[in-house]
Amino acid sequence: MKTQEIPTPALLVDLDAMEFNLRLMADFFADKPAKLRPHFKNHKAPMLAWKQMRTGAIGLTCATIREAEILVQHGIQSILIANEITGDWKTDRYAELSRHASLLVGVDHPAQICDLARAQRKYGTTLQVLIDVDSGLGRCGVKPGEQGVELATLAKQEGLKVRGITGYEGHLQPLPPGPERDERVHAVCQDLVQTKTMLEAAGIPADIVSTGGTGTYAVCGSYPGITEIQAGSYLLMDTQYRDRGAPFRRALTILASVISTRGSNHAVIDCGLKELSAERGLSELKDLPGVTLKALHAEHGLLQLDTNSGPPLEVGQKIELWVQYSDATVNLHTSLYGVRNGQTEEVFPIIH
Amino acid sequence: MKTQEIPTPALLVDLDAMEFNLRLMADFFADKPAKLRPHFKNHKAPMLAWKQMRTGAIGLTCATIREAEILVQHGIQSILIANEITGDWKTDRYAELSRHASLLVGVDHPAQICDLARAQRKYGTTLQVLIDVDSGLGRCGVKPGEQGVELATLAKQEGLKVRGITGYEGHLQPLPPGPERDERVHAVCQDLVQTKTMLEAAGIPADIVSTGGTGTYAVCGSYPGITEIQAGSYLLMDTQYRDRGAPFRRALTILASVISTRGSNHAVIDCGLKELSAERGLSELKDLPGVTLKALHAEHGLLQLDTNSGPPLEVGQKIELWVQYSDATVNLHTSLYGVRNGQTEEVFPIIH
Repeated sequence: MKTQEIPTPALLVDLDAMEFNLRLMADFFADKPAKLRPHFKNHKAPMLAWKQMRTGAIGLTCATIREAEILVQHGIQSILIANEITGDWKTDRYAELSRHASLLVGVDHPAQICDLARAQRKYGTTLQVLIDVDSGLGRCGVKPGEQGVELATLAKQEGLKVRGITGYEGHLQPLPPGPERDERVHAVCQDLVQTKTMLEAAGIPADIVSTGGTGTYAVCGSYPGITEIQAGSYLLMDTQYRDRGAPFRRALTILASVISTRGSNHAVIDCGLKELSAERGLSELKDLPGVTLKALHAEHGLLQLDTNSGPPLEVGQKIELWVQYSDATVNLHTSLYGVRNGQTEEVFPIIH
Repeated sequence: MKTQEIPTPALLVDLDAMEFNLRLMADFFADKPAKLRPHFKNHKAPMLAWKQMRTGAIGLTCATIREAEILVQHGIQSILIANEITGDWKTDRYAELSRHASLLVGVDHPAQICDLARAQRKYGTTLQVLIDVDSGLGRCGVKPGEQGVELATLAKQEGLKVRGITGYEGHLQPLPPGPERDERVHAVCQDLVQTKTMLEAAGIPADIVSTGGTGTYAVCGSYPGITEIQAGSYLLMDTQYRDRGAPFRRALTILASVISTRGSNHAVIDCGLKELSAERGLSELKDLPGVTLKALHAEHGLLQLDTNSGPPLEVGQKIELWVQYSDATVNLHTSLYGVRNGQTEEVFPIIH
């Protein structure tokens, strides 16, 4: 099918750009002790997870029990839930899935350890955890150092298998690349590695230190002692990470149709915030200089045309918009159309 | 199942509040010449559409061909797509669906009429349209008056059946209720009814004038000549419409679990912007004075606790948040849990 014939609105990935990103990341990790465990939350497409596995990923990172379940169902054998889970329902699922694959999950509070230990007793499977250390993001995680050791000791006492440390310096992703950011990322890595060393000194052998995003993968991935990188957005990319200086190509766009025009400077497309997230700003148009997305309603996008640049848009015309925030936009779709040279080569199901 | 046992994050509807809203709206229309054709886009739940039909709705309004398809598949026989459609794929679907139900769609440009006429010839079904008149929202629609007559004349020449007028004063929904807003809504209604009269004078018998939202249903629904109201948000409601003074009860919440806490004033929940839209602002907590949602990340919500109000939150504790913007939040879910007195009475599938 020609790209222009895909029913709109539709989520497209430029296969050339995606493959460029896949190779660039694989090349980076080829000679590093650290390995890539890419974040599934970004694309939620098992077929893309397998592309990542075939180019060197050691497993996948994810954010929820549901995502872990999807990965297990699609044959991924090593999964990190870089998040906390609580309650019987989720810890039961975690134990059940741990029978089928090697799962890791973050803990930062005795209550999670208590819930996991209960599930472990119920299912008779050894459950693995990482100590979640706050790298300064101020979301989840214990303080680096002694607090991590205390929690790991409790987890060990409760019979859980502590494998190491997980962190995420999300607050440093938006910083411009350069020595100042690198220094702050190094400090984060040092805290994580040091906490791991303290675990070992306390008699808890730990082999994993996981952190890093698309903005920081190179700095974290080169830091001695960091064993895994969680970057996910690098594959499909978005304008947000492009603006942060990440060296990958934007691959993700929305195809939309012009459904209405008025005069020469107003047009409306069949794509609103139910298909294109505006949570982190409005999208740029692709290959349409002088055209600006000025508002997203629920099912409509309102375009402003600079009348001095190019011809007016026609009703029925197809246009593309760069995705501003890939995570939240992919979340709105169930199909990702892989396109090259104006043709659809394959369609990747997005599983929720 | 107890409400507290629903796996989180989950979308809940308070059945008492929803039934109050259903009755209030039904009572309003009981003695009016205008009737309710509620918007399906808001809840996307066929079971709720049927609750609306059983309490007096004459059919459903929707925003997309896909929504019309879902409605037809669930037995709704009268459907207005209050939007424009273009291109072979969508107009073919429109013609196909028109074989199974009475469909209406907006037009505001000759190109849409041309596409619909092509589909009509291909399928041999008479296709119905409404002239979409811009009520001042500045999105789609022709100017009221002569422009509408010209377009209707063209549609008639092309063999389409023009049934009347559709508008939507979306820009007036946020205004505070009162004489000033009523005056502006009256002016909109007058334009729509007048355009319909002009159609009839031009030999195009028209029986439909459709407009009105949850903020304006009462004013539009009382205006002579307005035949249908498109309000949708009234059923589930949200904080946005509550703040605009709509007389309905908020029925829609997200149930989330506290997954992490730090000190006495910081907690994290398992609900981010992938489950709760922040496109129109951050949600309020339900029944938790002194607790504020201060940020939504993709899969996390960060809560700030005023340490002077009530006990701290516990890891594993369930909390509820009022939905700020129902349209975009329902769009992120596939199940709506109907709850009453702390129990789940039924689960309404949300179809996408």
